[in-house]
Amino acid sequence: MQSVDVFRIPMRGPGDVTGLAELLARGTVRADEIVAILGKTEGTGLVNDFTREYAVETVSALLADAMHASRTDISRRIAIVMSGGTEGVLSPHMTVFARRWTSKAAPEGKRLAVGIGSTRELQPHEVGRMAQIQATAEAVRAAIADAGIDNPADVHFVQVKCPLLRVADIESARSLGEKPVTLETRESMAWSRGASALGVAIALGELPDEAVRERDVLAARTMYSSVASCSAGNEQKHVSVIVFGMSAASASDYGISHRAMRDLIDADAVRGALADLGVPEADAPKRVINVLAKCEADPTGHVRGVRHTMLSDADLDATRHARAAAGAVIASVVGVTTLYVSGGAEHQGPPGGGPVAVIAKLG
Amino acid sequence: MQSVDVFRIPMRGPGDVTGLAELLARGTVRADEIVAILGKTEGTGLVNDFTREYAVETVSALLADAMHASRTDISRRIAIVMSGGTEGVLSPHMTVFARRWTSKAAPEGKRLAVGIGSTRELQPHEVGRMAQIQATAEAVRAAIADAGIDNPADVHFVQVKCPLLRVADIESARSLGEKPVTLETRESMAWSRGASALGVAIALGELPDEAVRERDVLAARTMYSSVASCSAGNEQKHVSVIVFGMSAASASDYGISHRAMRDLIDADAVRGALADLGVPEADAPKRVINVLAKCEADPTGHVRGVRHTMLSDADLDATRHARAAAGAVIASVVGVTTLYVSGGAEHQGPPGGGPVAVIAKLG
Amino acid sequence: MQSVDVFRIPMRGPGDVTGLAELLARGTVRADEIVAILGKTEGTGLVNDFTREYAVETVSALLADAMHASRTDISRRIAIVMSGGTEGVLSPHMTVFARRWTSKAAPEGKRLAVGIGSTRELQPHEVGRMAQIQATAEAVRAAIADAGIDNPADVHFVQVKCPLLRVADIESARSLGEKPVTLETRESMAWSRGASALGVAIALGELPDEAVRERDVLAARTMYSSVASCSAGNEQKHVSVIVFGMSAASASDYGISHRAMRDLIDADAVRGALADLGVPEADAPKRVINVLAKCEADPTGHVRGVRHTMLSDADLDATRHARAAAGAVIASVVGVTTLYVSGGAEHQGPPGGGPVAVIAKLG
Amino acid sequence: MQSVDVFRIPMRGPGDVTGLAELLARGTVRADEIVAILGKTEGTGLVNDFTREYAVETVSALLADAMHASRTDISRRIAIVMSGGTEGVLSPHMTVFARRWTSKAAPEGKRLAVGIGSTRELQPHEVGRMAQIQATAEAVRAAIADAGIDNPADVHFVQVKCPLLRVADIESARSLGEKPVTLETRESMAWSRGASALGVAIALGELPDEAVRERDVLAARTMYSSVASCSAGNEQKHVSVIVFGMSAASASDYGISHRAMRDLIDADAVRGALADLGVPEADAPKRVINVLAKCEADPTGHVRGVRHTMLSDADLDATRHARAAAGAVIASVVGVTTLYVSGGAEHQGPPGGGPVAVIAKLG
Repeated sequence: MQSVDVFRIPMRGPGDVTGLAELLARGTVRADEIVAILGKTEGTGLVNDFTREYAVETVSALLADAMHASRTDISRRIAIVMSGGTEGVLSPHMTVFARRWTSKAAPEGKRLAVGIGSTRELQPHEVGRMAQIQATAEAVRAAIADAGIDNPADVHFVQVKCPLLRVADIESARSLGEKPVTLETRESMAWSRGASALGVAIALGELPDEAVRERDVLAARTMYSSVASCSAGNEQKHVSVIVFGMSAASASDYGISHRAMRDLIDADAVRGALADLGVPEADAPKRVINVLAKCEADPTGHVRGVRHTMLSDADLDATRHARAAAGAVIASVVGVTTLYVSGGAEHQGPPGGGPVAVIAKLG
Repeated sequence: MQSVDVFRIPMRGPGDVTGLAELLARGTVRADEIVAILGKTEGTGLVNDFTREYAVETVSALLADAMHASRTDISRRIAIVMSGGTEGVLSPHMTVFARRWTSKAAPEGKRLAVGIGSTRELQPHEVGRMAQIQATAEAVRAAIADAGIDNPADVHFVQVKCPLLRVADIESARSLGEKPVTLETRESMAWSRGASALGVAIALGELPDEAVRERDVLAARTMYSSVASCSAGNEQKHVSVIVFGMSAASASDYGISHRAMRDLIDADAVRGALADLGVPEADAPKRVINVLAKCEADPTGHVRGVRHTMLSDADLDATRHARAAAGAVIASVVGVTTLYVSGGAEHQGPPGGGPVAVIAKLG
Repeated sequence: MQSVDVFRIPMRGPGDVTGLAELLARGTVRADEIVAILGKTEGTGLVNDFTREYAVETVSALLADAMHASRTDISRRIAIVMSGGTEGVLSPHMTVFARRWTSKAAPEGKRLAVGIGSTRELQPHEVGRMAQIQATAEAVRAAIADAGIDNPADVHFVQVKCPLLRVADIESARSLGEKPVTLETRESMAWSRGASALGVAIALGELPDEAVRERDVLAARTMYSSVASCSAGNEQKHVSVIVFGMSAASASDYGISHRAMRDLIDADAVRGALADLGVPEADAPKRVINVLAKCEADPTGHVRGVRHTMLSDADLDATRHARAAAGAVIASVVGVTTLYVSGGAEHQGPPGGGPVAVIAKLG
Repeated sequence: MQSVDVFRIPMRGPGDVTGLAELLARGTVRADEIVAILGKTEGTGLVNDFTREYAVETVSALLADAMHASRTDISRRIAIVMSGGTEGVLSPHMTVFARRWTSKAAPEGKRLAVGIGSTRELQPHEVGRMAQIQATAEAVRAAIADAGIDNPADVHFVQVKCPLLRVADIESARSLGEKPVTLETRESMAWSRGASALGVAIALGELPDEAVRERDVLAARTMYSSVASCSAGNEQKHVSVIVFGMSAASASDYGISHRAMRDLIDADAVRGALADLGVPEADAPKRVINVLAKCEADPTGHVRGVRHTMLSDADLDATRHARAAAGAVIASVVGVTTLYVSGGAEHQGPPGGGPVAVIAKLG
């Protein structure tokens, strides 16, 4: 029977892999068991945040050494997603998901399962467009199968890492006579996240295939996936996907549940997800291994009917405001600050809110 | 019998006084009843944040017109404190406190009372030093008397606005042969807040007079006032003080209570303060008129034992991180985002935490 | 005969009008002689930079007092343009242009002349569109006539202050069923500046009327005015215009000349403009009263064929980079740092460059 | 006879070593000939700028592979200095200095020579103190000898990379009962740069050994080295030193000269350095391979007697302002934007200015 183990490792900097190296050295986890790594690095999370790329490079180099494999092999076999931005109380860390065979007796009920998928490399002009939507949907379906999940309703979080358009990409597209979806690198992150999220929604049946049109990206904000979490980074050209869910075929000690935060201060959603797993709030600091969340500044400029200033703050990107706020609210409920809270939730959960998934040790 | 009324007015920008002008025009409040105004403006809250000064100027001009008084009169009679920084969900607003005589029968128990005080103008070299500590303590004592509070234990929040050192102030001190406490404008804000807070602690008997020495400022972090909230701004030379507390001599509809947040995610402290006033959490969005809070990034670099990155973020000041986090946590409990949450809590509440006072309509 | 006098006044902060107040008190200039004021304030120059609005308010209040006029009168009679951002060596200041009648004999040749114009208030959905282009062109023509300039070739600088779209403006447009040109406040500044600049180009005959289409705004970057300088601010709804040029009908002691900087480091353009006025470089620190310039980060991502990082810097807006660079280069030539250097040069001078106009005392 | 060759390689990102890899692959340069690499990366140059560390790691990994050496060997043999911050027109790049034996006839006059040195690892409490000053002086003397320079007057630039204090370092020092020179990571960069610069001044005889006391660091601003350039980074514990000068024992095609910029807009200093090498300004774009410069915001708050706002800008560190300004001024003279311009010039050149050294092909 398959089992998924989860390790949360603090990072002292974006290039710090000593924690992972120790786990490998001690044999606590074998490199070839690792299926996905989700990390938060202490950059800005914006276009020129190279802490993500740096962390991916360093982790990849370590794993390539450990597995005597090439970097290309590593990127094909293991989904490594580093999300920038640990504003407020958030703490830099990586979470390692390992799959292994176990002789344990099948536990009661469903348990945490993880699967991965990937698209081909996208051309710059495909970013934020239908090509990205469809390729992402395919990759999600493959990841669900990989996880051994048979019911889309058992999928609780889909992490997507997608490309952004650097100045060079935009110039290259234009030199080929193609029109990129935007000429601003910063905006390209939103386009890429939005298209990916719509791809997830299609794959999970949250939106019917034919309902999604290219022009809906960043426009039809009521169309969304309630479990998609998409990050854009300058270190890759393809879209990579990690599916987290519950499966009867898993013997993991962990479970996952999710709710939609309706706004940045929706602590009740976090409490609801805890309750779904049967974890009392007082036990959360010990039993919660991570919370995976996506959040955004409400695009209407209001939270609960009152004006916020996140969208007009030119000194500080709205995604940084949103992570600081949602991260603190989630931490105030679960008592843990090493959380995977990521910003920019276009088509990811309701506008101004976002999906929140709790992973905790089951009783 | 004296009564204190409280008006929370949203601001569309730091120069927006239309809400206050309407209240005056309608006669809802008379200018000469106003004793204090606390506002949050959408600046950075740092040295070169002129939104505070702009808001103070605009409000003062309106009140001077309304009272046919000079600006100097206004600044002597009304304590106007604008604190910069509405990160995350926080919303720019001002809260107007008015004192008036009422023929109402004395209500049961104590009610909200407000008093103000002020020091002389401080010289640049006095900022952050014993002169500021002592002058502030005197001003706080005067404000307590002004509020009609007879027991220091009934003081729940002391708002202090104190000067910072601009480059010109530092140069001027040096040209007079005086040594300012720091040569960095940004740091001078911390020195000034710290000295003010120790003055509050002395006035309230939280620390014995003789226990506080000049060298304790910013050094002896375990010495603090649990109700002090100090903001430094470049628009004034004196220290002005507003005392908020409970008095049997008040017939206000409102009450105030406080707790100390032990860290930025201490939602329980907010719940405790609500409970002290007998306000159920579900009623908070309607009954809470404001929450006054001070917060800071934990100076040890850790929250609940886990590393945070607020102190090493050179792009984004730690006070901005802290306001975003604490503001969201408090809002998640009370369901209100027009909150007075201010950053930089040197000697204001326990290290890494800060005082939180809830003002709400009593039952 | 008409004469234009020019006063450069340092500002100690965005609300500092003591210098102007002294000039008025001494009678050096009369308020009703003032036709335009151009200032640089120490904000970020971005959407939420309220130092511009604050400075405009404070200057307007002073002038309204001095002229016993209403604020509305002041804004109709005097063009007050405050541009945010004094990066690098740039120094906050205002330059006051006064027109008066003189009995001086007509000097040889043409001299500095100034005229102003204004459009009606624009609706949010008109910003960045043909309505703004056409209204601006009309206002420029009126300002040229007002200046007493008969040849468009004698116009050396056209300063435009135009509205931006705040979150509230965007929401208001949408609630009326109108589609604003962009949903991002920050971007709206570029759209508004671009449309204004094309309006200037039409008025001066740099582009034929019929050549400019709405879709050219921010798209056809080779279409530009070589003398337009447009700033967007959140303190106004109409477009106001100041024309600077040379006129035989002026007896001013000052002259103006301009060149186009082809990139941010084009010191030769500044030297050329100095030479056009017959001012030797060594005399510039004494004779140059101001340099008016517009600049931008090269939209191709390259300066002289080599990559720059201004467009991908998410921490620091490209306009701030550009002002710091161009300001320092101009200051290195003229030896003066109280310069009017403004960022964001869409359709204002060649791409990556911008107009630079020198105002200096004539020999 | 020894020769020094210089290669300037553009970088597409902080992890881009493709240019260097190509040089090695083609055999243009051999890894074991490389003595020093100076780079500029597109970070903020502040405490949490990890682009420096990332670039050092990536370059080191490439060279370790090429030389079949360990990382430790690489860091001992090759001085790799990455300085963060390419504000304004500056362009990310690395400059590779290679030493090789040549059979060329001895050229006339002195030519470019390069040498390196290093201190032991410093303890956190030694940073910014006498221990750092003395250790650095020793390392500089060793580097001069290594370069084959016999007269200190022939030293034209000394690049120092020194540690900063991270939050963890400060805590670790305190836990050992040691008092670090500052409790603020950001400030520790200034302390470390200042102590290093005084060490350089002693080694070159610019200041007599006994004249420098620990309390002079950051205090006695008139004590400085006119050729020191110090960068603080979070990726190392020791101080590493590269000396650039002229030697009769070198057959390099390149020469180096230096001047002191007296302020950020001192273009004449750059012209002077060009002239010292006999390079006409018109030839500079072709012949100048790099300019090495250090700069700072004038600590008095004024440039040429006029106020600047760099020191009170809480959004944007003064070092970023200074690099943008000085970088643009230097580029405007030499017509090259791939320049090594670094910020924070405590005790490095006159206050408000800094050393500027031109490396160019000799005639």
